[in-house]
Order: sequence, then C-alpha cells, then structure tokens
Amino acid sequence: MPGPTLRLHEIVERFGGELVGDPLVVIARVATLRSAGEGDLAFLANPRYRSELAATRAAAVIVPVPERNTTAVPRIVVADPYLYFAKVSAALNPPPATVPGIHPTAVIDAGARISSSAAVGPHCHIGPEADLGEHVLLGAGCVIGQGVRIGVGSRLAARVTVYAGCVLGARAIVHSGVVIGADGFGFAREQSGWLKIPQIGRVLIGDDVEVGANTTIDRGALDDTVIEDGVKLDNQIQIGHNCRIGAHTAVAGCVGIAGSSTIGRNCMIGGAAMITGHITIADNVVISGGTLISRSITEAGVYTGVYPFEENRAWTRNAVWIRKLDGLADRVRRLERSIPAREEEQ
Amino acid sequence: MPGPTLRLHEIVERFGGELVGDPLVVIARVATLRSAGEGDLAFLANPRYRSELAATRAAAVIVPVPERNTTAVPRIVVADPYLYFAKVSAALNPPPATVPGIHPTAVIDAGARISSSAAVGPHCHIGPEADLGEHVLLGAGCVIGQGVRIGVGSRLAARVTVYAGCVLGARAIVHSGVVIGADGFGFAREQSGWLKIPQIGRVLIGDDVEVGANTTIDRGALDDTVIEDGVKLDNQIQIGHNCRIGAHTAVAGCVGIAGSSTIGRNCMIGGAAMITGHITIADNVVISGGTLISRSITEAGVYTGVYPFEENRAWTRNAVWIRKLDGLADRVRRLERSIPAREEEQ
Amino acid sequence: MPGPTLRLHEIVERFGGELVGDPLVVIARVATLRSAGEGDLAFLANPRYRSELAATRAAAVIVPVPERNTTAVPRIVVADPYLYFAKVSAALNPPPATVPGIHPTAVIDAGARISSSAAVGPHCHIGPEADLGEHVLLGAGCVIGQGVRIGVGSRLAARVTVYAGCVLGARAIVHSGVVIGADGFGFAREQSGWLKIPQIGRVLIGDDVEVGANTTIDRGALDDTVIEDGVKLDNQIQIGHNCRIGAHTAVAGCVGIAGSSTIGRNCMIGGAAMITGHITIADNVVISGGTLISRSITEAGVYTGVYPFEENRAWTRNAVWIRKLDGLADRVRRLERSIPAREEEQ
Repeated sequence: MPGPTLRLHEIVERFGGELVGDPLVVIARVATLRSAGEGDLAFLANPRYRSELAATRAAAVIVPVPERNTTAVPRIVVADPYLYFAKVSAALNPPPATVPGIHPTAVIDAGARISSSAAVGPHCHIGPEADLGEHVLLGAGCVIGQGVRIGVGSRLAARVTVYAGCVLGARAIVHSGVVIGADGFGFAREQSGWLKIPQIGRVLIGDDVEVGANTTIDRGALDDTVIEDGVKLDNQIQIGHNCRIGAHTAVAGCVGIAGSSTIGRNCMIGGAAMITGHITIADNVVISGGTLISRSITEAGVYTGVYPFEENRAWTRNAVWIRKLDGLADRVRRLERSIPAREEEQ
Repeated sequence: MPGPTLRLHEIVERFGGELVGDPLVVIARVATLRSAGEGDLAFLANPRYRSELAATRAAAVIVPVPERNTTAVPRIVVADPYLYFAKVSAALNPPPATVPGIHPTAVIDAGARISSSAAVGPHCHIGPEADLGEHVLLGAGCVIGQGVRIGVGSRLAARVTVYAGCVLGARAIVHSGVVIGADGFGFAREQSGWLKIPQIGRVLIGDDVEVGANTTIDRGALDDTVIEDGVKLDNQIQIGHNCRIGAHTAVAGCVGIAGSSTIGRNCMIGGAAMITGHITIADNVVISGGTLISRSITEAGVYTGVYPFEENRAWTRNAVWIRKLDGLADRVRRLERSIPAREEEQ
Repeated sequence: MPGPTLRLHEIVERFGGELVGDPLVVIARVATLRSAGEGDLAFLANPRYRSELAATRAAAVIVPVPERNTTAVPRIVVADPYLYFAKVSAALNPPPATVPGIHPTAVIDAGARISSSAAVGPHCHIGPEADLGEHVLLGAGCVIGQGVRIGVGSRLAARVTVYAGCVLGARAIVHSGVVIGADGFGFAREQSGWLKIPQIGRVLIGDDVEVGANTTIDRGALDDTVIEDGVKLDNQIQIGHNCRIGAHTAVAGCVGIAGSSTIGRNCMIGGAAMITGHITIADNVVISGGTLISRSITEAGVYTGVYPFEENRAWTRNAVWIRKLDGLADRVRRLERSIPAREEEQ
C-alpha cells in the first residue's frame, strides 16, 4: 500500500527548519536511525543515540541545532526533532481513506441520523436518534446507543460500545474494546445487601480526544462524566462516574480514577497510578507511575509514592521494619532523651 | 424519553418518611442539590453540603432528621437519605422496557432454549443447549456459549461473552466487554516451556450480581469459580480460576484476585487492590484501595498497605532509606546497647 | 458431551510412570482429590494434601515417588505428578473439534486467503489480504484487519480484534476481548497540546503463545512489538508499543509493561506488577506480584517491592514515618556522633 512521498525541500517548505544537503532526496517513510534505509527519514532527539546517527543508512535525518555538523547525511536542522518528525510522519501516514457508506450487515435504527460522508462497518448497531457527523468512521461491530452524538471526523475502531446518551466531540480516535457510558459503581447499603442507584448522567467527551484499547469511562450517576478537549487516554484505563479530566491531560495505561475526582489541565499521569475518589488534582501535575493518590493535590509538581524494589531477600529483611517504624522512631526518641546534653553539644 | 412522575405524597406512601410541605409537588427526576431545578428531587446525605441545600432550586429534598428544619423547601425527612434517594431514583428510572423477540441478524443454535419473553439483540450468537430465562435481555453482539444458563430478568449489555457451560443467576446486570468463563491461567512447567492444563471447571454466578465493563472472570481449572448472590463487581476487575467471592461483597475497579482465593461475605475491596492466590479473606473485611494482600486475613477489620505519596524530591530523599531500613534498625540497636544505663533511667 | 476415556494401562503406556493397582480401571475425567468420584483421576502434588488423599473417592490417583505406599487407591507413581496430570488432562480434554467453513454471516474481503480447513464464526469480519492458516478457528465476532497473518492451528475465541498488518504464529490461543495491534501511546508535545505520532509498526507473535481475556498488545511506533515463542499472557495485561517479551516468559493478570521495554526469556512476572518503559529485564527473572520495576534488571533472581499491609490503624501509625525516614536517619546519625567513644567500645 504505497503512500505519499515527499522531497526534502517540500518537507522544509511545509514544516520549516534548515535543509543541509540534496533537496531532491525522496522520503517515503519515517524510521528509527537503526532500521532506516533507502527512502527513510530518521531523527535524532537525544545525543545518547549519536553513535546510531553515525551508523545510520537513512536517506536523511532530522537533527537538533547542536548536531548540525555531526553527520554528512542530508539533514533537516530544527529546534525540536521529535515534534518535527511527528509532523512529517503524519504527512506520510495519513489515516486510511474512509469510503462513505453503511455496510449492509449493519443494523441502523430508522431514527438515527448518519452523515452521507460517514462510514459504518459490518455488524454495527446504531440505536434510535443517534447522530453521526461528517466523515465519522465506525469499525466493525461497534454498538452505538440511543441518542449518542459523534462529532465530525471521529474514528472508532472495531468493537467499541457507546451507551445511550453519550457525546463524543470532533476528531476522536477510539480504539477497539472501549466502553463509554456503562453504569458507574453506585449502590446504597440496605439491610439485605446493596441497592443499585440508577446511573442517569452521561459521558461528554470533547474534541481531539484519543481513547486506548479496552479503556472504560463510566457515565455519571446524576451529573455527567466529562473528558475535556485534547485529553489522551492510553489502554486499560478505568474512569469512574462523575470524573472530570482537564484539557490536554495525558493518562498512561492501566490507570484507575475513582468516581467524582477532578483532574486538572495539562497533567501527566503515569502508568498504573491510581487516583482515589472525590479529590481534586491541580493543573500541570505529574504523577509517577504506580503511585496511589489518596488526597487532593493543590499545586503543580511531580508526585511519587512507590515502594523501591530490590532482590527478594533484601526486601524481606528491610520490609519487616515497615510494620515496626513507629516503634523504631520511638526508640530513637528515647535515645535522644537519654543523651540530651551531648546532643546539644553539636 | 419522558419517564414516570410521582407526587411527594405518593413517594412517602411508597417508601415512608415524614413529608413536610406541599404533598402535591410533582417529581420527575432526581438530581444533585447543585444542578436540581423544577421537577427535581435532591438529597442531603452529608452536613458538609448544607450550603448547597440553602442554595438549591430543587422542587423538593430528602433530608436526615437533624436537618428537618434547615430548609423551607418541601422535604422528606428520613433516617438514611441516600438509601431513600436510591429507592426513589429506581422508581423514576426503571430499566428500559424489553421488547421480547430475537433480532433477525442473531444466530441461534437450533438446540438453544430461549424464553418467549427474552430479547436477543442484533448480531448475537447463542450456542447449542444454551438456556435464556424469562425477560432475559441480550444487547447487540453478545456471544453465549454452549450450555450456558442465564436466569430470569438478567440483562447483558452489548458485546458480552459467556463461555460454554457457565451459569448466571437471576437479575444479573452485566456490562459491555465482560468476559465470563475464559480459561484460567494454568500451566505445568516442562523442559521446553509450559504445558497448558485444560480448564474444565465453570463459572457459577448467583442472583442479583452486577459485573462492570470489561471485567473478566475465569472458569475453574477442575472445580468451579463461584460468585455468590448479591456480589457487585466494578469495571476492569480480573478474577482468577477457582476463586469464590462471598455474598454481597463489593469490589471496586481494577482489582485483581489471583486464582483459588476465597473472599468472605460482605467484604469491601478498594480500587486496584490485589489479592494473591490461594488465600482466604474473612467476612466483613475492608481492604483499602491499592493494597496488596499477600496472606490470609482471618478477622474482620480494615486492612491497608499503601506507600504514602509526596512531592518527588521528598520521596527520593525518604525512599532511599527503604532499602536501608534493616541497617538503620541495626544502628539503633547498637546505640541502645551503648547506653544501657541511661535508657533504664527513664 | 462425552469425551475420550483411557484405561490406566493405556495412560502409563503413553505417558510413563509406575502403575500400582488394577490396570483396567477406566478414567473418564480428571478432578481434585476432594471432588473426585467414579471414573476420575486425581493427583497429589503437595504432601500438605495427604489427608485429602486418604479421603479421596477417586478411581485412581497420580502420586510422587515418596507417596507410593501412602494409599491403596490404584495409582500412577511419577516424578512430577502435576506435569503428568496436565498431560493426561490434555488427552482427556481435547479442544472441541473444528468444523471447517465460513459462517454465512461472516463478512470476508474478496482478497483474503482462508484455508479450507479453517473455521470462521458468525459475524466475523476479515479484511483484504488477511491470511488464515490450516485449522485456524475464529469465534464469533472476531475482526481481523488488512494483511493479518494467523498461523496453523491458532484458535481465537469470540470477539478478538487483530489490527492491520499483525502476525500470529502457529497454535496461538487468544481469548475473548483481546486487542492486538491498536495504536501505541505516542504523542509529541506542541504548544497547543499533543500531536499524534502515527503508529506504523506491527505486532509479531511467535508460536504457541496464549493471550488471556481482554489483554491488549499495542503495535510498534516505527519498529515492531514482538512476543516470542511460548509466551503465556494472562488476562487484562497491557503491553506497550515496541516491547519485546522473551520466549517462554509467563505474565500473570493485570500486569502493565510500558513502551520499549525488553523482557528476557523464561521470566515469571507476578500479577499486577508494572514494568516501566525503556528498560531491559534479564532472562530467568522472577518479579513478585504488585512490584513496580523502575530500572533495568541485569541478573536472574527474584525481585520484590511491595508495601506490607496491616490493620489500618497500625498502618497509619507506621506509614506516617515513611515521609520522615530521612529525618529519622538523620537523628540516628546525630546520636551516633554524640556517643562515638561508646560505639567503638562494642
């Protein structure tokens, strides 16, 4: 499946940067320095990989300003090679063209509105009053509930479920296995067990949001769960009912965010971090992978809470003291009391 | 989609409580104190939100006895406003009526037994000898294996898989993406790698169980995996082969329970907690979110094991001592030995 | 559904071991010592269960050499009863026979190549240039992208997605809800948010790999994500782009492996462990459940980093010192300085 190609001078005309070397070199693909060959454009983002730059067989490379003269390969010199590479790669790898139309095996409720430029794959089911915008793409086996709205240019991979009433903005990318709008986990205790609380809120997703494979976002209990513009969610994430995720926040895989928590804008949440319910995280907060956040964070910064791993026998020897820390601290206090004079001598 | 409405006096006649104010007020919806408006019934469960009660535009509110006179809004005074609210909400938000029948795109094995009151959605596949009880609802794209039994009134959302031989009780609610009865993780080491052990047990699920989106429950290796009555499972939970979850236990999102563990009745397991295999947890145990439970718990209580998070530089400074705790304790012991007399003076 | 049966002498002829007792006993099933009855073969792998051996009603048992004379039940005496049991169970529980053919509701692109011995279930969708080998089985609702290759004898359960270009080897077992080849989580920061980096690598899966329910394996960003021969993955695992998992490594449920990490051969990774990105783990490494691995491991061994749980009030009392460890260590150092002479007296 041959895609578009670009000459180096065309790339520089579109995306800027200083071109050093033959402007007519043809670029067909992007690749890593190590695996690149004829027709490939590679990039150096980190001086650590300078030896790979020296050995690369790429047709051309993108390098940062300080590396302008480290190589003889035709090159584009820019401030941020990784961002530049992303732009070129996007130009060389456009999403597959959408062939408008509804596959004959799809089941579409009579009351659904589907743009004539939308593409609906095999075995989809679209409920009453659903509304699919221009150029929306549904992969095979998607199930779209009653009254769902999906904005212009959004692309859902195969086997995505969107429950009734939820709203996706424009240009969403939703991967396979995602479930948007299932019931939140809401129950009231009664004597004989748990009484289910109807989950009547929705999920509202802004523009330019990406949702990774098998991620789940629960509908609100009363009010809505909100994912703001530009949020990027990796795979296997769970977002509880009534959460709000601020614009342009990125969440790595396996993260859980319990119900009614609010995450700020431009946050970065590391893999497998867990955010407890009913708390608020400020804008520009970075949370390390594996950290459990148990109370609100009011200031931007990097937050971590990870037990350092070590060889098992060493861990056993040290971890036994975790359960005795208060006692150990007590012993230190008693020692301090027993030699007060000397301590002051320091 | 207008649902049922209730006048305040009808609510009190059905669910009890003291009515203060106009009994003819019409309630169409439940809502939060903050977002409620005309036709909405809100509730105050926590005195913390008293300011929202003062500002609410709800048509009526549910309040606890001590707040009987804090507001002039028509109100129902009860012992447990949250539970009461749940009951009213359930009355106002009945599950959508099921239209019996099998969608023509569904593929049903000739030997399957499907109640005439059941509803089977588009693109479902139902295997031989499966048995769907009265009023069972299958959303689009469900796959029901050979010999599966699903009890009266159970509702499976779109894209649920139930492997051969598994049994669901009455009134189950199973959300999209759930997989019940996949093979447990059972292998024997042999020289050249791993030999798969056939997983020939089943999953047996009791009555009134709810299973959240993309949760997985593995079939037993030899005996069955058992989920007792009234268990509530949130999203993205993994339950290994041969586990038993006691009645009315609630498990929050992202929890993993490894194989052959037994959880008691009425337990509450916090989000992202992990239970190791082959252990037993007593009844009425509460496990904090993010805690790894590595051995059996024999007494009711609250159990926690979470590394407290802090700002990253502080964490680095403190965490380095985790790997030196045994050494630190040793130094304290030596100090104590070096001043035995003084210590006794205290 | 009656399966094959075997007489004890047939079992020993096929799999070895010493037969003690009636060679004509007929075995129809394997079972646990506790639940076994007529026609059942049970096994004793651990002397801990000797009391269950005494009470068993199994038709025959598999025992280790030291237990040869502990029971009067007909028995097979072997070095490794668990492995032996696995072999017998596999013989008694062959996978259900595949009926070749393509279900009429499946949608197959004209350019796909499907072996005549393959079986494609209802509502599958197979894209152009996909290639399904001999005896491949697809359960209902699988979605196989353009150019995907699936090797001889592989079995995909219902509702599996394989994105375009990915390759599965021979004899794979892939459970329901699995997503192979979704986009990795790759974005470059730009002023206004995040720019998506096209994910143009593939997922390459070797022979004899098993993938548990709802596990996700992302496609590479530029190069490929690689799962080598004999790898066993449990449920709800997330494997990021450009990871490599070495041959015969076993990964338990809920594990996350961030992008560009390399795991060695014959490793065992415990449930809910998390591996950070861009690191390397040596061969034969064992990682305890719940451990976060934040840097490379260069030597075989067992590695652990788990916060020990305890009753909540005790945890609170001790955990408060985690954030003061550096200060506590400082106090110990000051104490040591204040009594240098005595300390040396030891």
